[in-house]
Amino acid sequence: MTRLSTVNPDATVLDPQRFIKRERDGSALDIDQINTFLESDPHARDLTHQLVDQLAHDPVIKTDTSTYDLTKTEQREVTVKKIARMALYMEQDVKTVRKHFRDTDLLKSMQDLNDNTTPPLTNKDLSIFDKRLSLVANMDPQLSTRIGVHLGLFGNCIKGNGTDEQIKYWLQTRGALLIKGIYGCFAMTELGHGSNVAQLQTTATYDQESDTFVINTPDLAATKWWIGGAAHSATHTACYARLKVGGKDYGVKTFVVPLRDPSTLQLMPGVTIGDIGAKMGRDGIDNGWIQFRNVVIPREFMLSRFTKVQRNLGGQPTVQIDPQMDQISGYSALLSGRVNMVMDSFRFGSKFATIATRYAVGRQQFSEKPGEPEKQLIDYPLHQYRVLPQIVIPYIISPAAFSLLNYYYSTLDELYAASSKNDKRALLVVGQKLKNLFIDSASLKATNTWLVAQLIDELRQTCGGHGYSGYNAFGKGYNDWVVQCTWEGDNNILSLTSAKSILKKFVDSATKGKYNKELDGRSFRYLDPQFIRKVFTTSSENKLDSLYDYTNIWAVALLKLLRHIAKQVEKTKDLDGASKLLVLVSKFHALYVMLNTYYEKLNSPTDSYVTCPKTKEELWKVYKLFSLYFIDKHAGEFQQFKILSPDQISQVVQPRLLQLLPEIRKECIALTDAFKWPDGMLNAPIGYYDGDIYHNYFNEVLKNNPVEKDGAGIPPYHKLLADMLTRGDEFERLGGANNAEILTKLAK
Amino acid sequence: MTRLSTVNPDATVLDPQRFIKRERDGSALDIDQINTFLESDPHARDLTHQLVDQLAHDPVIKTDTSTYDLTKTEQREVTVKKIARMALYMEQDVKTVRKHFRDTDLLKSMQDLNDNTTPPLTNKDLSIFDKRLSLVANMDPQLSTRIGVHLGLFGNCIKGNGTDEQIKYWLQTRGALLIKGIYGCFAMTELGHGSNVAQLQTTATYDQESDTFVINTPDLAATKWWIGGAAHSATHTACYARLKVGGKDYGVKTFVVPLRDPSTLQLMPGVTIGDIGAKMGRDGIDNGWIQFRNVVIPREFMLSRFTKVQRNLGGQPTVQIDPQMDQISGYSALLSGRVNMVMDSFRFGSKFATIATRYAVGRQQFSEKPGEPEKQLIDYPLHQYRVLPQIVIPYIISPAAFSLLNYYYSTLDELYAASSKNDKRALLVVGQKLKNLFIDSASLKATNTWLVAQLIDELRQTCGGHGYSGYNAFGKGYNDWVVQCTWEGDNNILSLTSAKSILKKFVDSATKGKYNKELDGRSFRYLDPQFIRKVFTTSSENKLDSLYDYTNIWAVALLKLLRHIAKQVEKTKDLDGASKLLVLVSKFHALYVMLNTYYEKLNSPTDSYVTCPKTKEELWKVYKLFSLYFIDKHAGEFQQFKILSPDQISQVVQPRLLQLLPEIRKECIALTDAFKWPDGMLNAPIGYYDGDIYHNYFNEVLKNNPVEKDGAGIPPYHKLLADMLTRGDEFERLGGANNAEILTKLAK
Repeated sequence: MTRLSTVNPDATVLDPQRFIKRERDGSALDIDQINTFLESDPHARDLTHQLVDQLAHDPVIKTDTSTYDLTKTEQREVTVKKIARMALYMEQDVKTVRKHFRDTDLLKSMQDLNDNTTPPLTNKDLSIFDKRLSLVANMDPQLSTRIGVHLGLFGNCIKGNGTDEQIKYWLQTRGALLIKGIYGCFAMTELGHGSNVAQLQTTATYDQESDTFVINTPDLAATKWWIGGAAHSATHTACYARLKVGGKDYGVKTFVVPLRDPSTLQLMPGVTIGDIGAKMGRDGIDNGWIQFRNVVIPREFMLSRFTKVQRNLGGQPTVQIDPQMDQISGYSALLSGRVNMVMDSFRFGSKFATIATRYAVGRQQFSEKPGEPEKQLIDYPLHQYRVLPQIVIPYIISPAAFSLLNYYYSTLDELYAASSKNDKRALLVVGQKLKNLFIDSASLKATNTWLVAQLIDELRQTCGGHGYSGYNAFGKGYNDWVVQCTWEGDNNILSLTSAKSILKKFVDSATKGKYNKELDGRSFRYLDPQFIRKVFTTSSENKLDSLYDYTNIWAVALLKLLRHIAKQVEKTKDLDGASKLLVLVSKFHALYVMLNTYYEKLNSPTDSYVTCPKTKEELWKVYKLFSLYFIDKHAGEFQQFKILSPDQISQVVQPRLLQLLPEIRKECIALTDAFKWPDGMLNAPIGYYDGDIYHNYFNEVLKNNPVEKDGAGIPPYHKLLADMLTRGDEFERLGGANNAEILTKLAK
Repeated sequence: MTRLSTVNPDATVLDPQRFIKRERDGSALDIDQINTFLESDPHARDLTHQLVDQLAHDPVIKTDTSTYDLTKTEQREVTVKKIARMALYMEQDVKTVRKHFRDTDLLKSMQDLNDNTTPPLTNKDLSIFDKRLSLVANMDPQLSTRIGVHLGLFGNCIKGNGTDEQIKYWLQTRGALLIKGIYGCFAMTELGHGSNVAQLQTTATYDQESDTFVINTPDLAATKWWIGGAAHSATHTACYARLKVGGKDYGVKTFVVPLRDPSTLQLMPGVTIGDIGAKMGRDGIDNGWIQFRNVVIPREFMLSRFTKVQRNLGGQPTVQIDPQMDQISGYSALLSGRVNMVMDSFRFGSKFATIATRYAVGRQQFSEKPGEPEKQLIDYPLHQYRVLPQIVIPYIISPAAFSLLNYYYSTLDELYAASSKNDKRALLVVGQKLKNLFIDSASLKATNTWLVAQLIDELRQTCGGHGYSGYNAFGKGYNDWVVQCTWEGDNNILSLTSAKSILKKFVDSATKGKYNKELDGRSFRYLDPQFIRKVFTTSSENKLDSLYDYTNIWAVALLKLLRHIAKQVEKTKDLDGASKLLVLVSKFHALYVMLNTYYEKLNSPTDSYVTCPKTKEELWKVYKLFSLYFIDKHAGEFQQFKILSPDQISQVVQPRLLQLLPEIRKECIALTDAFKWPDGMLNAPIGYYDGDIYHNYFNEVLKNNPVEKDGAGIPPYHKLLADMLTRGDEFERLGGANNAEILTKLAK
């Protein structure tokens, strides 16, 4: 309610709360079970709820609609306050994992270079904080990016390329992993090079006499660009630069370069930094550019697990490179970001699905007949088609996102173990796992960040004008989100590289029977030579009978698409010419992996946690809708590659799709309530839990734009307006010199 | 060049200017002829160039990259300064049309209520200014909206619903059309109702004794919402309210309601106004909300061309409504906006096409072999597929946009003439024309605002990270643009209503032979009964042989789609159930109309203005690419409805599409240069004419973010960061109470 609303409590026309309540009352679903399913398992679910509850109520970190009115400068300052707050949670979270809160100061011991009794920080120690960071990304993406660049990019670059001693020194002793002591940024991208890391132009030239590297920016285009945290905050950077020793160029390696004094934030000599300025979104991140002019660092600041430069006074310095591991380490730095973006896709998508569904249920517009109450938006078939498939997208992403994250952590643990022991055999296996992980993460990152960008846009439009309001989350949400489509691997580049690897695997399997059941069984079962043979020798129609058929059809589609491409490339010898189709391979792979993972989880007696039969049935409907929606979207390819016939599209796919919509519609509130986002996380009054759309929205607008000060009376620039409106006639304004009388005089 | 760039002039790696120059040198096209084609004719083209030149250099109106850093408050104030400047151009433009600059003050005479010798202001008088406003929409959308609401919505509402005397009084005497005296807004939408205008809840109750209307907001949901100009600027509003006379509700009518004193901008009694606050884009527009509490206006302030209330003291007041004209007037108020949005789509789209093409030609990334120069982005097949179809979209929109605009003006002139003379026969014809105009404008507005939203997004992604920079126009461009998809007729609603009308026309023609060659020949030639019969009785394959086939196939597609829907609805009796397909009908109609109009113009010996054979050939390639691109996009429907076979898709459509891309690529710089946008209009340094991408971009970033003040040294919130980084160990911070020693003591 609001002081400014003259509400008639008897009004029957607009009472959105009533509709939302009715849906909840009528639901047959167990949303706790669904939530457990979506959050992976009971333990992970509980942790999510604890963290969300804490963050959404933390006095510094919580967000409200006033966020949408902050200027760039304000956003940046507020974000730093939040980082400092998150740093305190970090300490808490590490101690929670170790259950060590008393007697000795755990963190102090970790920072102590001479302490040999406290085990070093592991991924497990950071597991709670990583989850916290992933959740805060959903409330305030720029906050998580600012921290993520420091921990995820700067930190992982050191972890992936540094020696054990370097890792301990920079990340523990100096405090980086505790967001303390130093603050890192990740100086990879340059003005002239993004995707092509191998062509970066910044140089690190070894000077044997002083036993140092000299870092230089040789050209404007070599200016480090877009560097998150560089403009104001970073004290150190993980700098990608060409290693030059004795006149020879050894390619791009990584170096820790101090940028600023941590106590005053003053720049180091030779370092020039500027602010990148305004962005489409995430203005709270201080992206900057960096130029180096003869910046000198000790040799030991080069990260040298796989690349070592040795001083050799009196002779030539020596350079040792482990090429295999150097390449593997190249994969790993950006993997973390991609894996997390798949999780972000699930969470961010679910937020907007919740907002738009509540609005669609609460909002009425047009009645069937004059005098009848207006229909709820969600009861229009077109609206169902626009909203409901978007709800199911985060559902299908979730199991794949958790599975990918777990696989990433376990593979990374294997990598660190094998690489510490220098176990070549183990490294070989890990290397192959990393390659598969690269394919999956690239394809899932690209596909899902695109899907969620479309989801936000489509759902914003379903909220009409109110979706365009700054206070209903869509605008900022979209602007913050879409950078995920081009950063840390541009989606098109990622799609192409992952698809090219899949194509190679396909050819290897189809022509040489090469297939590693153990490794490829996780995401590439469609490449099993037996399956390939079956698909290409069976002439029977593809069906959508069993539940698994809804996954299997994508496996068939992938094979037919891959064969088409392979044949075409064989003829044209032009792989790039098939790019448009390769992007599709990456997308189909992601859809297949997600459906498959969802299918297996829901089917699993131990992992689904869904015992209520009605609930399980509903979750199968969700699964079917997702598959049908994308088959219909790709009906062109399904018909062209003869996966389904035109009649199957007309008589099976589309009718089933249209039949499912009104069924899913019945539980759409329960299905979105099951995401369990508190209002503070949604931060969009038209989507708050109570469904009191109009009062909530009006109140938030009013809170941020007080009526007396700003609206009524005299606005700040009223004189400009009044002067315009009351300007005199033109001839008078110009002193009358155009009047016939004067002109006659002038003519004389 | 820039002081901060250490450029090596011999560098061979990155020299984007060279590539762009090479393209220009190698072009065989006559871009002046193309520009004339795109700008409709030589006269219109010259006017465009004059106005663009004037606006892009006007000291108040010109925009530069600093625009992207303005806060909401600054944007609003700057916009008012620009409005005041535009008001002076308005005076100039009216006098230019009348060639009246001397002897007597033309505008003063127009404002004089008693002057009977000066002819009233016509659409022709406003033609130059309308074009100016349309062009400025391309530089600064919020400026044109703020003026457009006043002239286009407030003004057209009065023109469409007022008597001749009311029109003259409000628009001339009071000065509104000269942006003087009063400033109008358009209070239609309410918090609870947008698309469903008939259900608006604001009331205007007639009080016979005082001979006035009392305007009231009965409920929170009846609050006028989103009203552009209401928050700060409007002195009057065209208010949509339910006419209540003697207890009877006559439905929604229009009233002029004063809101503020024009000399002080102070609110009138009973009027409460607030600011809507932050939006996704167009923050320079002061959208507001309005509540009325017993606001009294004289009876004569009701716009009463078609609805008249007569006082009848001692008896019941009488209400006279002309239902037919009342409905027609309903169409016309929003038509202007829609028609203009089609033109905006052409211009706005062409701007981003230019930026992205120059970047794609100048930017290099990855080389084929190590050591070779890196390839230009535009030479990758995938990049061609992403960029080039987007270039041709504005090409194909242009002829349809001009044709629609001209038809709109001529039909409106007919309407005013017929309605002034009360010529019932003429009104009947105009009414039918307006209905067709409604279908075309709705379908073209919806389709093209969607296409351009996708175009901006897709092209932003082709510029990678640099597309996400605030200074390269995409972010603000997208945010400003996408409101066009939901306002002044939500795209989905417009698509549905236009498609339902098309379906009705189809059924009338197919079953009853009803078809008006004269009226429907303009956009609905595919509904000619002879053509329908031909399509449904011929069994031969559809071909893409002749040039016209590329248009004709869409006519065929429309008929097959319409027949499918008609059959389905006949069976299900559920028109809404076919909504998903109806949206497609609207889109296909728009594509058909655009291709047809382009085809006719380019084919015309008098209207194409393209005499150079190579140029004409290129423009036919543009036409083919557009058609093929969208056939491929809709390959699902083309196969499902048996318009083309899977083999035709594989062997004709896709190969031709992929062959055309490298051909169009050869002239992509010329094709975008031909739009002739000056840098000041593009306002995106990666797309400036000279192609010096990196220097231009770096310079603009630096100009807006001075390196010394902001980047180097100590940022504003450095203390927050330093305090966090240098915080002590936790046990010390907490006073050591967790130490084993203390805890032992506490345990005693």
